[in-house]
Amino acid sequence: MSDQYKYDLRGVSATKDEVHQAIKHLDKGLFPNAFCKILPDIVAGDEAFCNIMHADTAGTKTSLAYLYWRETGDLSVWEGIAQDAIVMNLDDMACVGCLNNIILSSTIGRNKNLIPGEIIGTIINATITFLEQMRKFGVHITLAGGETADVGDIVRTIDVGYTAFARMKRNDVLENHIQPGDVIVGLASFGQAAYEKDYNGGMGSNGLTSARHDVLSNLYTEKYPDSFDPNVPKSVIYTGSKNLTDIINIEGRKIPIGKLILSPTRTYLPVVKRLFDELRGDINGMIHCTGGGQTKVQKFIQNLRVVKNNLFPIPPLFQLIQQESKTAWREMYQVFNMGHRLEVYLPEIKAERVIEIAKEFNIPAQIVGYVESAEDAKVKIESPHGVFEY
Amino acid sequence: MSDQYKYDLRGVSATKDEVHQAIKHLDKGLFPNAFCKILPDIVAGDEAFCNIMHADTAGTKTSLAYLYWRETGDLSVWEGIAQDAIVMNLDDMACVGCLNNIILSSTIGRNKNLIPGEIIGTIINATITFLEQMRKFGVHITLAGGETADVGDIVRTIDVGYTAFARMKRNDVLENHIQPGDVIVGLASFGQAAYEKDYNGGMGSNGLTSARHDVLSNLYTEKYPDSFDPNVPKSVIYTGSKNLTDIINIEGRKIPIGKLILSPTRTYLPVVKRLFDELRGDINGMIHCTGGGQTKVQKFIQNLRVVKNNLFPIPPLFQLIQQESKTAWREMYQVFNMGHRLEVYLPEIKAERVIEIAKEFNIPAQIVGYVESAEDAKVKIESPHGVFEY
Repeated sequence: MSDQYKYDLRGVSATKDEVHQAIKHLDKGLFPNAFCKILPDIVAGDEAFCNIMHADTAGTKTSLAYLYWRETGDLSVWEGIAQDAIVMNLDDMACVGCLNNIILSSTIGRNKNLIPGEIIGTIINATITFLEQMRKFGVHITLAGGETADVGDIVRTIDVGYTAFARMKRNDVLENHIQPGDVIVGLASFGQAAYEKDYNGGMGSNGLTSARHDVLSNLYTEKYPDSFDPNVPKSVIYTGSKNLTDIINIEGRKIPIGKLILSPTRTYLPVVKRLFDELRGDINGMIHCTGGGQTKVQKFIQNLRVVKNNLFPIPPLFQLIQQESKTAWREMYQVFNMGHRLEVYLPEIKAERVIEIAKEFNIPAQIVGYVESAEDAKVKIESPHGVFEY
Repeated sequence: MSDQYKYDLRGVSATKDEVHQAIKHLDKGLFPNAFCKILPDIVAGDEAFCNIMHADTAGTKTSLAYLYWRETGDLSVWEGIAQDAIVMNLDDMACVGCLNNIILSSTIGRNKNLIPGEIIGTIINATITFLEQMRKFGVHITLAGGETADVGDIVRTIDVGYTAFARMKRNDVLENHIQPGDVIVGLASFGQAAYEKDYNGGMGSNGLTSARHDVLSNLYTEKYPDSFDPNVPKSVIYTGSKNLTDIINIEGRKIPIGKLILSPTRTYLPVVKRLFDELRGDINGMIHCTGGGQTKVQKFIQNLRVVKNNLFPIPPLFQLIQQESKTAWREMYQVFNMGHRLEVYLPEIKAERVIEIAKEFNIPAQIVGYVESAEDAKVKIESPHGVFEY
């Protein structure tokens, strides 16, 4: 069946057209081309400052964590879920230069009959640990608290969201002004950053519906009926060939496939902090490749073509997803980050320094493409699997 | 079966003990006895100011809205859901005197196959309308935006949450210092406030699991399997005698029972604004009777007994719920507000003025009880249905 048809059946969309339609009349903020909506300084009324409020969740990655935890008893996957929900907020905010004076609040909805208190405790403790780790890199975030609701009539297993608020100087805001002639430095989403405990498969918190249902075997359909929408035709539920604990060999490490997909969304905050300290004036744009994958930048350009002709080799995780799902490659680049989740737009002469800084954190980085003038906002991906224009 | 057993089966709790256990080591903030957690001024670093970040959701009231909308096509119930989720935040924050410089962000998770975009649009537009209405009363709240996620594998129908951030002067914070000799002025949760469009049954966003399952008939079990947790024994699902569109007569108005239970959580913001403008120095405490119902104040007193011996006549909605559920009256007062959702603690000499101000907004108010010294933190309810000590 077509990729689009499969998405429709599963009730997901890469584009969120319907939601955008519902909110299109809302004000776009002070800097319409910034990666996050920038509000006036509502809370302190200082014209030199601005406010950001940002919400995001771990999405359906929690459903996979539920499966893996039930199968193995491994609570640590919930630490990853905390990180997923946090990073989906903070790395967006980092793209406008917001790295301090951030307050975070959680909203957790759970089915109390399936999700015990120790999971809530693990998520909250992981949040505290993550914020402590970021503090060592000069990124200061405070956990305000949050709400945990027992709502089994609403939530099948557990939903984990965070909302972040921050205040910053308007002068410090990075609005995207991507230029013809800029190069794009991509920062790898996979591997093991200096501040990560394990190999990271490169998964963010997007594309999980495909990654879960296309890769995992229908063994889980019967076994965990709470992990999916029963209204969705069985023909698109857990249609893959893999079990959660099947081992994949990556760089000499043996990793269970469930855990590979559950790799916590890598944060780039420590790197971005260094980039802003040193190269702030040179950076013309910064994009967090979440929903929309490698085409995300399209929303932040005008009369430009972003050409990506030197992407990272596709990491094993995304190769696996494509093999199992047979998703068209064109579509793969729209759903998954395919190897880098952060990209920096700047003049070529400064690119090497970005790459060096990333390397200090053991994050591979490289020039993945360039920007040229065009009549419209275009993204072109030249991949080993074809050339795709969006 | 016992009330407690029924709650356990349904996966809800009035006390949230397990969640409190998970978060007990978190810092309690600058004013531990304030109704909301008060943080230092993290975003602007001014010692004269403080920050508040608050999250809450409409809980399982969304599941009832789903039923009612499916049965009748009446989209307006979703306007109520927006108000529920907002007021659960803002009326908590009003209890510390926070009525301005507030920013709001939504987190909506939906099952796209069941919840169309027009519902999202209705919720967002209702938010805007509500904030505009509050502005006329001198309460200034800004909608920042929010996240809407299509997560049918997590959310059966729809989950609607808001997170609010505010900054205020520390001197303006009302910390609860409830005194022996204070009287309690209760402000009615039912009737029709001057700023409400219809009769309000008095429902907040607590106790909805009981209100839904104990009142509504099992007609809905088969018809709307997405409206409850299929793991919960059928013996506690939709066990009442009423249909959603059965009419109840209240004060000469004919109201469908579904809509009565869906009454949007009344906000007291316009009244609280006036109370703070005029009586700020006289108020020793303000309690929003949400989870814990009429016993909520117990968390904010030491060596005091709060005696409620003159509560409002029990509104028809709560009478109906008790008739259908046979819940012990002692329990009813712990789950539902039973007639007033806001209470003001102050010297008796000032009580009349509170009552007058509430009356200006067509909200009945009365002295519902008093405070006396005790050896511990106690609440005593003297009701027509018995005397209950908590």
